[in-house]
Amino acid sequence: MLENVDLSKSISKDEYVKLIEDLKIRIGELQRKAWKMDIPVIIVFEGWHASGMTDIINRFILTLNPMGFDFYTTGKPCYQEEQKPLLWRFWTRIPKKGRIAIFDRSWYRRVIIEHDGKCKPGSEMPTCLNEITYFERQLADEGYLIVKFFLHVSKEEQEKRYRKLKKQEIPLFIVEEEEQEYLNDYGMYLPVIENILERTDRSYAPWTIVESDDLNFATVKIIAKVVQSIENKIEDIGKEVSKGQNNNNEDCIVPNIDSSILQSTDLDKSITHKEYKKEKKKYLKKLSSLQYELFKHRIPLIIVFEGWDASGKGGSIRRLVQKLNPRLYQVIPVGVPTTTELSHHYLWRFYNEIPEAGHIRIYDRSWYGRVLVERVEGLCSIQEWKRAYREINEFEEVLTNYGTIVIKFWMHMDKEEQLNRFKQREDTPHKQWKITSDDWRNREKWDLYMSAADEMLQKTSTSWAPWTIVGSNDKYYARIKILDTVVKCIEKELVERGVR
Amino acid sequence: MLENVDLSKSISKDEYVKLIEDLKIRIGELQRKAWKMDIPVIIVFEGWHASGMTDIINRFILTLNPMGFDFYTTGKPCYQEEQKPLLWRFWTRIPKKGRIAIFDRSWYRRVIIEHDGKCKPGSEMPTCLNEITYFERQLADEGYLIVKFFLHVSKEEQEKRYRKLKKQEIPLFIVEEEEQEYLNDYGMYLPVIENILERTDRSYAPWTIVESDDLNFATVKIIAKVVQSIENKIEDIGKEVSKGQNNNNEDCIVPNIDSSILQSTDLDKSITHKEYKKEKKKYLKKLSSLQYELFKHRIPLIIVFEGWDASGKGGSIRRLVQKLNPRLYQVIPVGVPTTTELSHHYLWRFYNEIPEAGHIRIYDRSWYGRVLVERVEGLCSIQEWKRAYREINEFEEVLTNYGTIVIKFWMHMDKEEQLNRFKQREDTPHKQWKITSDDWRNREKWDLYMSAADEMLQKTSTSWAPWTIVGSNDKYYARIKILDTVVKCIEKELVERGVR
Repeated sequence: MLENVDLSKSISKDEYVKLIEDLKIRIGELQRKAWKMDIPVIIVFEGWHASGMTDIINRFILTLNPMGFDFYTTGKPCYQEEQKPLLWRFWTRIPKKGRIAIFDRSWYRRVIIEHDGKCKPGSEMPTCLNEITYFERQLADEGYLIVKFFLHVSKEEQEKRYRKLKKQEIPLFIVEEEEQEYLNDYGMYLPVIENILERTDRSYAPWTIVESDDLNFATVKIIAKVVQSIENKIEDIGKEVSKGQNNNNEDCIVPNIDSSILQSTDLDKSITHKEYKKEKKKYLKKLSSLQYELFKHRIPLIIVFEGWDASGKGGSIRRLVQKLNPRLYQVIPVGVPTTTELSHHYLWRFYNEIPEAGHIRIYDRSWYGRVLVERVEGLCSIQEWKRAYREINEFEEVLTNYGTIVIKFWMHMDKEEQLNRFKQREDTPHKQWKITSDDWRNREKWDLYMSAADEMLQKTSTSWAPWTIVGSNDKYYARIKILDTVVKCIEKELVERGVR
Repeated sequence: MLENVDLSKSISKDEYVKLIEDLKIRIGELQRKAWKMDIPVIIVFEGWHASGMTDIINRFILTLNPMGFDFYTTGKPCYQEEQKPLLWRFWTRIPKKGRIAIFDRSWYRRVIIEHDGKCKPGSEMPTCLNEITYFERQLADEGYLIVKFFLHVSKEEQEKRYRKLKKQEIPLFIVEEEEQEYLNDYGMYLPVIENILERTDRSYAPWTIVESDDLNFATVKIIAKVVQSIENKIEDIGKEVSKGQNNNNEDCIVPNIDSSILQSTDLDKSITHKEYKKEKKKYLKKLSSLQYELFKHRIPLIIVFEGWDASGKGGSIRRLVQKLNPRLYQVIPVGVPTTTELSHHYLWRFYNEIPEAGHIRIYDRSWYGRVLVERVEGLCSIQEWKRAYREINEFEEVLTNYGTIVIKFWMHMDKEEQLNRFKQREDTPHKQWKITSDDWRNREKWDLYMSAADEMLQKTSTSWAPWTIVGSNDKYYARIKILDTVVKCIEKELVERGVR
C-alpha cells in the first residue's frame, strides 16, 4: 500500500485557505449531525516520525468543536496498562455514542514499534493482529465509524526534515527509547508496516495513506476523508433503518433448544453440615495461600457467577472470599448499566473492570447478561445478542491470551427450590429487601431463561473458558463444589505453567 | 491519643459471634438507608504494620453489600499520580452519593510514611496537613460522612506478630521500600503519628483509635463505630431538614455590589487588523517555544476563560492553541454536569480534569459556574455558592502549591455589543447553531450575572490565582491582551523559579 504512492502531491497556500474554509463548515455540521444521531467515531493517526503528524493533527482538531471529541496520545504503556491485555487501554477509551475519539498513535504502536521486541513476528504478532481485528470488528458491528490514517513520507524527505529540525533547534518531541530504531531505520520498518497495513485494511476499518510531503495537502486530504466517511456512515444508517424494519421479527422464530445441558444436571447432590464445615475450612486454607502464588506469578483470575435468582450466588461468593486478602480480590456485582455504560459498546464496562495481573475479580452476574436478561427481556436487539456469543468468546480469548484464568459457574436449581427460598426471604425480616417484584416476574419467565441459559452454555463453553454447572438445590454441596473447582483450576494452571 | 490506651481489651469467641450477627443486620439496614438518603460515606483505615488490618478490613467488608462500596488500597503513588497534587488520587476516588468508599491506607500515608522523606516536617508537612484539612472539611460541608480508624498495637505485640508471621512462613504482604522504616522503627514513628492524629482529629472527621491486640475486639469496635456514625448522620440530617426551611430566604437579601470592578473596565480599547496579525504571529511563536519549557520543567498551566455569552471565549482559545502541540494542551469545554458528576462534590469533576505536570489545560467555562450560572439560576443552594468562594480559593491554592500556574480571564463586554453579535450569529447560516433561546434568556438576567461576576472577581482574585479582566468589545484587542498576559505570566514564572 505504501509503494507507488506519489508523495509529491501538493496544493498552493491560496487553494488551501479556500478549501479549509469550506471543509471547516462541513465538518462542523457533520460533527453536530453525528452527535444527534449518536454515531461514535474513532480516528487513528499512525505514521513516520517527522511526517508532520503533530501539526496536521492540531490543524484537524481546530476544525472540530472541543465539546465533542477526545484526544489521546499513545506512548509506552504505563505500569497499570502493562498489567492488562494489549487493547485494554484502548477499550477503556472508546468514545461514547455521538463523540469522536482521536488517537495520535494507537493500538498499531504495539505491532509497529515492538514488532521485533516483545511482539515477535513469529509468536506474539499474529495474536496481536487477531485481537486488533476483534476489536475493530466488534466496534464496527456496534455502529462505530473507524477511520485510520497512515502519514507517509519518503526516506529522503524524512532525513531532510530531521536535518531542518536539528538546525532550527526545535526540540523534537520526546522520543521514547524503544522508538529510537523506528526513528532511524526507515528501511527496516517499511516492509513491516506495509505488511501490517495490508493485513488490517478492512472494509469496516480501512486505511487511508496520506501523502505528507506537503502539510497543506495532507491536512486537506484528512479532513476531506473524515467528512466523506461521516457522510457515508449517515447514508448507510438511513439504508439500514429502512431495510431493518422487516428483518427483526423473522429471526425471532429460530429457537435453539434441541438438546438441553441443564435438564440433565443432577440437582439432588448434597452433603451434611459437618462435612461442609470440614471441607470449607480445608479449601479456604488452600485458597488463602494460592492467592499469593497467583500474585507472585502475576496471573489474573476471573470467576464468573451466573444462575437463577436465589440460587446462592451471593452466599457462595462470601464464603469464597472469607479468607482472602481484600487487597487482592474484588467482588463486582453487575447490575443495570448506567446511562454512560449504555452509550458505549456493551463490553466497554467489562473491559473497564478486568483485574490487574495477579489480582482476583469475582463477578456476581456478568457480561452474560446480554444473552440472558437482555435477550429475554428484549433489552437489546436479536442481532445484538446473537452476535454476543462470538464477542464474548473473543473477549475471553483476549483475557486468556494475556494469561488470565477464567472460571465460570452456572448455579442451577429447580423451580420448587426457588419458590422455597423466595418464601423464606419474605418471611425473614432482614432478608425481605432481597426479594422484589422483579424476582417474581423473572420466575414467570423460567422457561425462556432456561432456553437462553442452555444456548449460552452450549455456545460459550470454550476450551479456554469452560462453564461449570453447579447443582445448587443443596447450598452446602454447591459451595464446596465451587471451592473445589476454583482450587483445582488454579493448581492445574500453576502446574501447567511450570511454576509449581 | 495513643498513650494510655488499654491495648489488652478483648472479647471471647462466643461473644464475638453473637455481636457480629447482630451488627451485620444493623449495618446492612443502615447501608440501604444511607443509599436511599444519598449519603456518601468515607472510611479510612490507618495503623501499624501487623496490626491485623487486612483481616479486620476483610471481616468488615464482608458485612457490607458489595453493590454499594468501593475498596481502595493506597501504596506508593504511580507515575501518573506523581504528576498531580497530593490529594488528586483521593479526590478522584471520593464516593458518589449513597456509596461507601473504604481506604486501606489513605492521604495520611504521605504524612506518616514520608514524614522525613519528601514531606519534611519543617516544609512540606504543614502544607500537606492544610490540604488534608481542606479536603475533609469540603467533603463534610457537602454532606460526606468521614470515619477514620487508627489500628493500634503495642511495640511488643508488633514484634511478637512479626516473629509469628516469619515462623509460619506466611508471606507478609509486599512492603514497599519506603515503608521499611515504618515497618521496623516503631519508636521513631510513635510521636509523629501522635502529632498527626491530634492535628487532624476534627469534629467533622474524627479519629477512632482501635485497640488491635485482639482481632475480634477490633472488628466489633470498628463495625459498631460505623453503625453509630451512620445512625448519627441520619439523625443530624433529620434535624437539618426541619431547621433549614426558614433559613433559606433570609440570606438571600444580602447582595454584594457596593463597589463594582466591572463597571470601571474600559471596554473601548481596540487595535487594527494589521497590528493584530503582526502581534499574534509574534506571540504564537513565543508560546510555541514556551510550551516546551513548561514541559521540560514539569510545570502545569491552567488557563480559565469566563465571560459573557458571545464575548469571544471560543475564538480566543482557538487562536491561543493554534501553534501548540496537541500532545501538550487540551481544551476542556465545561457544560451541564452529568448525573454522575452531580452525585459527587461539585469540585470532583474538576479534580478529575486537572493537567499533568508540564501540560496545559484550557477551560472554556469552569468551576466558577457554581458562583455564576448555578447561583443566578438557583441550581444550587445559597449556602452552597457562598461556601464555594472559599472552596475555589482553596482548590486553586492546592494547584499552585503543586507548582501549577493558574491564569484566569473574565471576558467583559457591554450589552449592546452582545446584541450585535447575537444578531450576527442568527444571520450567518453556519453560525446559527451557536445561538439558542438559552442565550436570549441569560441576556435578560444581565444585571444578576453582572453582580454575581463582580462578587466573584472580588472574592476569588488571590495572590496565587488573580483574575485578568479583558475588555472584549474589540475581538482583536481582546485576543492580543490574552496572548500577552499568558506569555508574560509564563515568562515571569520561569524567571522566578530560576530556570530562565
